[in-house]
Amino acid sequence: MDIIITMTPIGIVHLPYKQIKDMPIQGKFKPGVKAWIELKQEYSTGLKDLDGFSHAIIIYYFHKSEIIEIEGKPFLENNKHGIFAIRSPHRPNHIGLSVVKVEKIEDNKLHFSEVDVLDGTPLLNIKPYVKHFEVRDNTISGWLEKHFPKSKSQ
Amino acid sequence: MDIIITMTPIGIVHLPYKQIKDMPIQGKFKPGVKAWIELKQEYSTGLKDLDGFSHAIIIYYFHKSEIIEIEGKPFLENNKHGIFAIRSPHRPNHIGLSVVKVEKIEDNKLHFSEVDVLDGTPLLNIKPYVKHFEVRDNTISGWLEKHFPKSKSQ
Repeated sequence: MDIIITMTPIGIVHLPYKQIKDMPIQGKFKPGVKAWIELKQEYSTGLKDLDGFSHAIIIYYFHKSEIIEIEGKPFLENNKHGIFAIRSPHRPNHIGLSVVKVEKIEDNKLHFSEVDVLDGTPLLNIKPYVKHFEVRDNTISGWLEKHFPKSKSQ
Repeated sequence: MDIIITMTPIGIVHLPYKQIKDMPIQGKFKPGVKAWIELKQEYSTGLKDLDGFSHAIIIYYFHKSEIIEIEGKPFLENNKHGIFAIRSPHRPNHIGLSVVKVEKIEDNKLHFSEVDVLDGTPLLNIKPYVKHFEVRDNTISGWLEKHFPKSKSQ
C-alpha cells in the first residue's frame, strides 16, 4: 500500500481570488467571476471537444495548505467532522476538486467561470462533467443539510 | 509550474472487478455490486460523519495504466477526443474519480456500492458528495449526449 505516486501539474489556474478570504465556499455561488487555466503547451490538444460540454471537473493541488488534519472544522460551522466528510484543503494528499462552467477554449487556455480556487493553483487534471455519471437523485448531504434549506436547494 | 507533488495512498479499494472487461462504464449502471475501502488505520477517524451522506466522491490512482495519451478513444465510440474531454485512465497524472453510494462505516472500512474501479486500486482521497456543490442544472455533455437519449437520462 505504501507506494509513492509522483505528479506534476498540467497547468496553472489564473483568477481574481488572491486570498482564501476572497473566495466563495463553492464557485457556483459567485457565478460572474471569470478565470482561466493555462495548460502546459504539450497538453493543449487534450482540450479538444471539451468545449462541447457545459461544465468540467477540475482536480487540483491545495498548494497553500501545509498541514494535514484527520478531523477538522468546515467553513460553515464550528463542529468537528472527519476530514473525509468535509471539503477542507488540509486533507491527506491535498487534492481539491470543483465543478466549473466551461466558457471557451483558446489554444492552451480553458476559460471558465463558477470558480472557488486560489490564483496560482496547480492543476492536476480536467474531466468532462457528465450528468449521467455525476448526478445522483435523492441524495442526503449529512451535516451540510441543515445549512441548505430544502426549499432553496432543490 | 514544474513542481513535483508526491502522494501516498490513504487506502485500497477491494471489490469483485478483477479486470477492466468486467467493469461497467460507470458504477451507477451496476448498482448491486458491493465494495469496500480499507483505509490506513491512522485515517480511520477521518471517516467520522461520512455515513450521514448518501454518496461520496472517491479520487484514486489508475494504477493499471502505464501510458499517457493527449487524445484518445473512449469506451463508447471510435472517435478520438482530447484526453480532458473523456474519462480514459491514460491521462496525465492518472487521476480517477467516481461518485459512489455510501453503505456503512466499520472502523477503518468504508463499504460502498455503485462501483467502477478495479480491485486493488490505490485511493488518494474521499470527499462527501454534496448536491448543492456538485449538481448543475441544464448541463450539456458534449460528444456523450448522443449516447444517452434525453428520454432515458433525465
